[in-house]
Amino acid sequence: MANIRVAIVGYGNLGKSVEKLIGQQPDMELAGIFSRRDTLDTLDPDTPVLPVDDFADNTDRFDVAVLCLGSATDIPTQAPEFIRHANTVDTYDNHRDVPRHRGEMDRVAKDSDTVAIVSTGWDPGMFSLNRTIGQALLPGGGQHTFWGPGLSQGHSDAVRRIAGVHKAVQYTIPSPEALEAARKGEADDLTGKQTHLRRCFVVCDEADRERIENEIRTMPDYFVGYEVEVNFIDEATFDAEHTGMPHGGHVITAGDTGGFTQTIGYTLELERNPDFTGAVALAYARAAHRLREAGQSGAYTVLEVAPYLISPTPLDELIARDV
Amino acid sequence: MANIRVAIVGYGNLGKSVEKLIGQQPDMELAGIFSRRDTLDTLDPDTPVLPVDDFADNTDRFDVAVLCLGSATDIPTQAPEFIRHANTVDTYDNHRDVPRHRGEMDRVAKDSDTVAIVSTGWDPGMFSLNRTIGQALLPGGGQHTFWGPGLSQGHSDAVRRIAGVHKAVQYTIPSPEALEAARKGEADDLTGKQTHLRRCFVVCDEADRERIENEIRTMPDYFVGYEVEVNFIDEATFDAEHTGMPHGGHVITAGDTGGFTQTIGYTLELERNPDFTGAVALAYARAAHRLREAGQSGAYTVLEVAPYLISPTPLDELIARDV
Repeated sequence: MANIRVAIVGYGNLGKSVEKLIGQQPDMELAGIFSRRDTLDTLDPDTPVLPVDDFADNTDRFDVAVLCLGSATDIPTQAPEFIRHANTVDTYDNHRDVPRHRGEMDRVAKDSDTVAIVSTGWDPGMFSLNRTIGQALLPGGGQHTFWGPGLSQGHSDAVRRIAGVHKAVQYTIPSPEALEAARKGEADDLTGKQTHLRRCFVVCDEADRERIENEIRTMPDYFVGYEVEVNFIDEATFDAEHTGMPHGGHVITAGDTGGFTQTIGYTLELERNPDFTGAVALAYARAAHRLREAGQSGAYTVLEVAPYLISPTPLDELIARDV
Repeated sequence: MANIRVAIVGYGNLGKSVEKLIGQQPDMELAGIFSRRDTLDTLDPDTPVLPVDDFADNTDRFDVAVLCLGSATDIPTQAPEFIRHANTVDTYDNHRDVPRHRGEMDRVAKDSDTVAIVSTGWDPGMFSLNRTIGQALLPGGGQHTFWGPGLSQGHSDAVRRIAGVHKAVQYTIPSPEALEAARKGEADDLTGKQTHLRRCFVVCDEADRERIENEIRTMPDYFVGYEVEVNFIDEATFDAEHTGMPHGGHVITAGDTGGFTQTIGYTLELERNPDFTGAVALAYARAAHRLREAGQSGAYTVLEVAPYLISPTPLDELIARDV
């Protein structure tokens, strides 16, 4: 069987992760990278780098394109154009807008005989899948999603904007007590502010510490109402320990089956967030190609894809090995 | 939309769990119970109880039958007969024989225009799903399944057969060190005997304790080679604390994405094992009915069913709520 030829659109953190991960896939090859930049420092210098404006003219080079673009404006405006010409996978993460995005992609994909899988990654993505399955198995049960321990880009930026802050990161951390309550099915009345704490690591002059800590703790929306921990560290420690992109979290569903508590927990511990997001996108790129090969067209969320379609292993081997 | 009419075949622990759980489903009703016994002490005295031999003559009463039968001989011999007449779901748990069973059910179901979903439950079932997805996302990663803490019927029976044992249970418990190694992706060389310990609670005369403990520890296959813990307790404690059917376990997949460890953990903590097995079977009963309504026929494992099909919530609501 010929390899699945994957194109990457966009070469930020996610695009670089996908480039790296294609090399780990037994049945895929990198067909090229579409970018707005003329030259890229690609892992393999022979990887074709093509102008993103030439996407439509190069669809014979690849089977499916992974759209490694931002969710704020790029995906909603550009994805409906890409799907007109080729199968795509995206990681669109604006939860509230997913129904609209899927609807638009579905309409164009059906007109164009292509397949889009939208909002892959881990949340949305694997967490969505576990939320749906958990509630289907334990109807009426309680369900909670926890994020972290993980780097929050938005909160880190907010701390960095405070005068006098040289470097800063903020990690969102699920409260251990809230996690335990969720597992026991006793977390129904907990709010997001009670279930997460915010841990900051800040590099600044010693004279500024008290003021900066106060500005963090009193920052509305971002920190007020949360349990906040502020740690001041030196720059060498910061550079050694706080430049990664860890993340993860939990989906916990607890239901009562007539006097008995049943708990389903799904946990991700990710040393590098974009690598895992990219891993999920790539697995669903395989599914997009297969669905199209089977004559399908339209847009799918992860909820709509039969799980075996994301695996490189043939179905009969999966049934013998995993079931 | 009319409720899905569910029939139960077999009225042991699993059948009773499914009977109870149908009442928690927003879109299902219990159509009747097929049994070899003439009268059953059903939850609702009005529930029709029918002879299992009359199954084929009563298929107009229900949409899908949950086969709550033993895997040792009942499912392999009887399921191919039931699927000839109606959609079925089973919890066939003889892992090595699943490919053959699915093949036979598929052949008969396709001939009979019915849908079978085979080997639902949690292992096989939800654990199978997580093994397949975990390996698809992290190809080349390490994957380990842990069972417990949970009651092992086979090991409990083995202890009870020892002369002088009045009552006994055996719980299989994942080793905490092995779990931690699996999460870190460092458990590749661990065997089943190193990853689980066996904890026994025994009621017997004090004079027999030393001999019984020795017989347990030296029992081949069941206990030799494992870390074994033997606790002697009085009958009142046994009756108060050790008559439940708890179980659960973990599927842990850890992969390396180029210098970064990514870990996926799926954990079940079940206070009553047959209730959760029944909950999974019922959710897939919904999918079997829907697949048949959509014109499909044949046999499916959980790997082949799009996840939204097991949920009582319509797809557009799921996309808005869970994605």
